[in-house]
Amino acid sequence: MKRVKVSNNVIRRLPRYLRKLDELSENGVSRISSFDLGQQLGLTPSQIRQDFSCFGEFGQQGYGYNVPALRTQIASIMGMDRGFSAILIGVGNIGRALMDNFCFSEWGFNLSCAFDVKPELIGTEFNGVPIRSIDELEDYIANNPVDVAVLSVPKSVAIPVTERLTACGVEAIWNFTNVELTEPNSNTIVENVHFSDSLLALSYYVSERNDEKAARAARAEKN
Amino acid sequence: MKRVKVSNNVIRRLPRYLRKLDELSENGVSRISSFDLGQQLGLTPSQIRQDFSCFGEFGQQGYGYNVPALRTQIASIMGMDRGFSAILIGVGNIGRALMDNFCFSEWGFNLSCAFDVKPELIGTEFNGVPIRSIDELEDYIANNPVDVAVLSVPKSVAIPVTERLTACGVEAIWNFTNVELTEPNSNTIVENVHFSDSLLALSYYVSERNDEKAARAARAEKN
Repeated sequence: MKRVKVSNNVIRRLPRYLRKLDELSENGVSRISSFDLGQQLGLTPSQIRQDFSCFGEFGQQGYGYNVPALRTQIASIMGMDRGFSAILIGVGNIGRALMDNFCFSEWGFNLSCAFDVKPELIGTEFNGVPIRSIDELEDYIANNPVDVAVLSVPKSVAIPVTERLTACGVEAIWNFTNVELTEPNSNTIVENVHFSDSLLALSYYVSERNDEKAARAARAEKN
Repeated sequence: MKRVKVSNNVIRRLPRYLRKLDELSENGVSRISSFDLGQQLGLTPSQIRQDFSCFGEFGQQGYGYNVPALRTQIASIMGMDRGFSAILIGVGNIGRALMDNFCFSEWGFNLSCAFDVKPELIGTEFNGVPIRSIDELEDYIANNPVDVAVLSVPKSVAIPVTERLTACGVEAIWNFTNVELTEPNSNTIVENVHFSDSLLALSYYVSERNDEKAARAARAEKN
């Protein structure tokens, strides 16, 4: 696959396309026009054609997109067929929630091991994933492929644990700690999960709706 | 405040601006040009000016933006000064993680109550938030302001709990269940938290970096 530099906005839209295509497949839809796809996603057809053109030509004039083929190609672009391996550090509430409810394999990831400091957790398994002592972290990484570390430790240790991870060659971190880990070094990719971004968007939409309601009520009173 | 229809992309960028402005304030920066702000966020200065122009004029030619004033205005646009009230349904791993680590008040929300079905939780408090029986849900909502319900129940009950919430007038749901709750009715606003979107973006960036490394290695071998 030829790799061209793709804008972050396009990359952030790809998972939404993927979800929509899965939904279409489940509903037995096997082809869709850029017009219909756009309508369902709140995007213009030209936006959609432009997004996909970053990766080559998927659609066919007058035919539209083949849903399973497009799904396969987007999954491949996202790296879901590369068999990435992940470890998880910190089996607290959020770590447990991920191990319990988040299906890593659905997204092409193998969660191979988790690490914690609590003696009562070490040596146990959670949903088939073994939990080891954090003391074994370096040794484990030296002997197993680790593409991504999921960081779900308490805030206070986020930075030292990140330093340990990068020191032994882990180059991608999925960060749930709310501590900004801005590029520990130039080789490290950090993806921060900010719950607040999502809550603030919701807050915006609720404010907007309340204002619209108030405006409608004011107009009704005037009439 | 005059309210104009703002694109979703702008709304999704506002929390990032907010975080950056907080970081600048912490570092003692009190004014910043659209050029510098753009550089730090990976956006063009004209993009930034365009985003802010949706809400009126914030900057001053040749002076730049006043950091605390801009922060206040964005916070107000996002509804953070409206004193929204939230309840949380489902005190499992993700519910606990939110109650434990997520600072609702920092984002202008008051988390007033949580609900669960487990007898051992009912009547207790978690981080100062009382946990009540889900049987009391309707009664609580009838007697207290509830702007947003945080949905962190098991998947299997996501739809019935949503129906109960909307039936008693809750019009905004922050959905952590991974079940797509697409507009239970036209009055309800649903904000879905998709961890997978974030993991897939990370997966993309790791794939891209691996490909670049492989290309560099191939070139080095040829030379």
